[in-house]
Amino acid sequence: MRVPAVGLTFALSRAKRMRGAALAVVDGDVRLDWDTLATRVARLAGGLHQRGVQPGTRVAILAANSHRHIEAQFATLWCGAVVTPINTRLAPPELQAVLADAEPSLLLVDRAATDAAASLVRDVSSLQGAVILDELPVHPWPTSDELIAENPPIEDAGSEGDDLAYLYYTGGTTGAPKGVMLSHRNLEANSMNVIAETGLDRDTVHLHCGPLFHVAAGARVISTTIVGGVHVLLARFDADEVLDTIARERCTVATFVPTMARQIVDRLDDRHDALPSLSLITYGAAPMPEDTLVRLMQALPGARFAQSYGQTELSPVATILGADDHVLDGPRSGRLGSAGRAVLTAEVRIVDPDDRELGPGEIGEVTVRGPMVMRGYWRQPELTADVLRGGWMHTGDAGYLDDDGYLYVVDRLKDMIVSGGENVYSVEVENALYRHPDVQQCAVFGIPDDQWGEAVHAVVVPKAGTSVGAEALRAHCRTLIAGYKIPRSVEIRPEPLPISGANKILKSELRARFWQ
Amino acid sequence: MRVPAVGLTFALSRAKRMRGAALAVVDGDVRLDWDTLATRVARLAGGLHQRGVQPGTRVAILAANSHRHIEAQFATLWCGAVVTPINTRLAPPELQAVLADAEPSLLLVDRAATDAAASLVRDVSSLQGAVILDELPVHPWPTSDELIAENPPIEDAGSEGDDLAYLYYTGGTTGAPKGVMLSHRNLEANSMNVIAETGLDRDTVHLHCGPLFHVAAGARVISTTIVGGVHVLLARFDADEVLDTIARERCTVATFVPTMARQIVDRLDDRHDALPSLSLITYGAAPMPEDTLVRLMQALPGARFAQSYGQTELSPVATILGADDHVLDGPRSGRLGSAGRAVLTAEVRIVDPDDRELGPGEIGEVTVRGPMVMRGYWRQPELTADVLRGGWMHTGDAGYLDDDGYLYVVDRLKDMIVSGGENVYSVEVENALYRHPDVQQCAVFGIPDDQWGEAVHAVVVPKAGTSVGAEALRAHCRTLIAGYKIPRSVEIRPEPLPISGANKILKSELRARFWQ
Repeated sequence: MRVPAVGLTFALSRAKRMRGAALAVVDGDVRLDWDTLATRVARLAGGLHQRGVQPGTRVAILAANSHRHIEAQFATLWCGAVVTPINTRLAPPELQAVLADAEPSLLLVDRAATDAAASLVRDVSSLQGAVILDELPVHPWPTSDELIAENPPIEDAGSEGDDLAYLYYTGGTTGAPKGVMLSHRNLEANSMNVIAETGLDRDTVHLHCGPLFHVAAGARVISTTIVGGVHVLLARFDADEVLDTIARERCTVATFVPTMARQIVDRLDDRHDALPSLSLITYGAAPMPEDTLVRLMQALPGARFAQSYGQTELSPVATILGADDHVLDGPRSGRLGSAGRAVLTAEVRIVDPDDRELGPGEIGEVTVRGPMVMRGYWRQPELTADVLRGGWMHTGDAGYLDDDGYLYVVDRLKDMIVSGGENVYSVEVENALYRHPDVQQCAVFGIPDDQWGEAVHAVVVPKAGTSVGAEALRAHCRTLIAGYKIPRSVEIRPEPLPISGANKILKSELRARFWQ
Repeated sequence: MRVPAVGLTFALSRAKRMRGAALAVVDGDVRLDWDTLATRVARLAGGLHQRGVQPGTRVAILAANSHRHIEAQFATLWCGAVVTPINTRLAPPELQAVLADAEPSLLLVDRAATDAAASLVRDVSSLQGAVILDELPVHPWPTSDELIAENPPIEDAGSEGDDLAYLYYTGGTTGAPKGVMLSHRNLEANSMNVIAETGLDRDTVHLHCGPLFHVAAGARVISTTIVGGVHVLLARFDADEVLDTIARERCTVATFVPTMARQIVDRLDDRHDALPSLSLITYGAAPMPEDTLVRLMQALPGARFAQSYGQTELSPVATILGADDHVLDGPRSGRLGSAGRAVLTAEVRIVDPDDRELGPGEIGEVTVRGPMVMRGYWRQPELTADVLRGGWMHTGDAGYLDDDGYLYVVDRLKDMIVSGGENVYSVEVENALYRHPDVQQCAVFGIPDDQWGEAVHAVVVPKAGTSVGAEALRAHCRTLIAGYKIPRSVEIRPEPLPISGANKILKSELRARFWQ
């Protein structure tokens, strides 16, 4: 007999049953209780179902944060379908490439994305139409509110376990889009680890100010729903609005990438009585400058801090540096530079290129196993088999463990730039530059940046007899890739780039002088 | 591609990797670190494997608590086999019936059980032999220490997810043994809920003083291993030894059934400086008399309290009444009589006999769904399909939820007696009584008892012309069922028992005068 199990939607049913009249979502002036939210989701699911959304169907969401974004995610899961969140900052050709790969049957967009939606519905053959996640419809597409009004609630399709729940796209190192398949089980495992390690509970009022199209914020939607807390949504990150919202809604938990943290702390220095409700700040996605962290800890002495390290493929958290280790004095004060220890159901192992385990202090590739490891890359079985070889996710990051199991990440093997919380794969930017007729050779890498953590930097060797300039190259890139991927600085260099024995550009040599 | 997942053994590998040199187990004078424990397990698994233990094989364990008991459990899981813990208090015919049902290939016993083991190995055809979980061997069986010395460590078989991990036997309402199938996933889900709700962490030093053959203590072995804490073992519950051990080993967590709690609190009244290390006391398995609880809370003001409610079929925890609700004054002080709220990944629903959901305050059957719900009853697909109908575990308990989702358990529909932490199914005792030639009619139920919570009470109507006495009936039972199931009091009654319209004995009527 197959024992019926439960997927991520159970969290919504449970919150409705246990906390029906309690506040579930705050989005500007909109305040919904769990009963209302769950009913809207079951009705919206009815509307999606009527438009052909079935178990396994991909439903793409291209929209800023809002209560409708959360409703769209849960309604998709309620249908047994696969939420496919799309980065709103992608350039049109990138959007096309992602949707052509995911083959969604429906596209849910906010009004800001309706122009993009029109071209996508025209050009991506799998798309049957769009739904507007906003107050007013855009002809010929209805709003999600209209679908909610018109459709009776449907039964939860009951997807669970290894069934796909989310398809999150990350820039691939080959430049092609790469869909990370996360199951119901993956995200439940992540949530239970984060809840147990950070103490989220039913009193949690969680500010979601990072974009819901990234798993970092998306996973917190699941965690907060499991504990039956409150979701507080901001359409986008704005430091002043974040501070005002935390104060007004008495938020208890917020998550920042280092760039956000820096903007927050600059304002906190002037408001020392600020944010008494905030009891937990979690941060991650890129190394936090110690100076920023120390100032934040000093400005908010009543808050606990937790750093997390992971990646989309890990749903996303693999290690957490907990509140105990966020101390400025005493024997544990030296740990702020660590990414912390493996979360409860994760194992972290450092291996050499032949997958032999290395001892404490030895630098190698960080590998992770546990129920949070992705199901694989969408339609890329060979790549999947490679990164998951031996049952361990090979993160592409280099690091070491100390004697107490604390992880120190020292480099990114995959040559990814983390700029303002967004991942930029240098090869994508290089591919764009190479499409300019005057580019002979180029190398793209991250350089230190006070504002963004890292900034995208390009070194370009023009073809003989040409004289292309930095601005022309940036304008060229703008037509091909998202704004945040465009090099902030371009260095034109007459002599050839240094080359390794294997004929690879020695990027490490070019980077070195920026990182000393 | 099948993504490799991880089962309960991951917790041991993880603790070995992260906390190798840290203390793992304290058992009298024996102190083992995680590296040693994990190595002993992998070697013992080698010995079991050599004796034919394969993935899916049942391995029965009939032994008091000890570090070898824990090693035997993990070694069995390491082989991918199914741990089958046996209640050491069962009478010989009960042991036979359980093992005949489980069909284990190997029996692991301590010296106290070697006589029983000899008959079982002779009479239960599936058994290939026994292994002694003690220092000295018993001819012809080796000790587990000998297997550890003789065998190299083997690789973890990698059982996980829905694979069976444990087969726990409960007395069946039909009198026949009933094996509850718990998967790796079931016990991981329970552990993550308990860890998140009670705050177990790597500083946990967990006293296991309840028998490991019950899932209540067995599940805590998994939880404590996941957090990488310390297991402190007592062979059996003895109140003085419990207090001495908590003080000596600085235990932080202990779990008591109400009977134990009463004995503890009687001693604590004289030692007000006692047990400063104890930060969490969890209790459950039967209603705790409020007087005992209040005295315990007053005697240990530094400890948090958590009550759990569940059953073996729920791995076992479905609801927890947390520390917040263990208060003697103020608005939340009225909740001590509640079993608490659904744990994070459980949903609790109250239904009528037609499985229609009831509203707050309405009494019906308590049903539960979530990843902690058992796979089913061993080789009883019809019974399994019945209790799991609609995807919800039907607990057989009657209760109601209040407006805030707090569960109040008011009765046990299955007519089970909970005496000193052991479950006694009245039908088993009645079956034993009916095998006496002079018994015409009988009814067995629990009556209030200061010492045991409930005591087993029998009302017997002798056959006409006979004059059987209470002591003769108790002696008769002793040959058939475990000591704790034998009626503590027997009432001989000349007139027939009251009968319902459906011809059932109206036990509720007989019980009533004891429970007013």
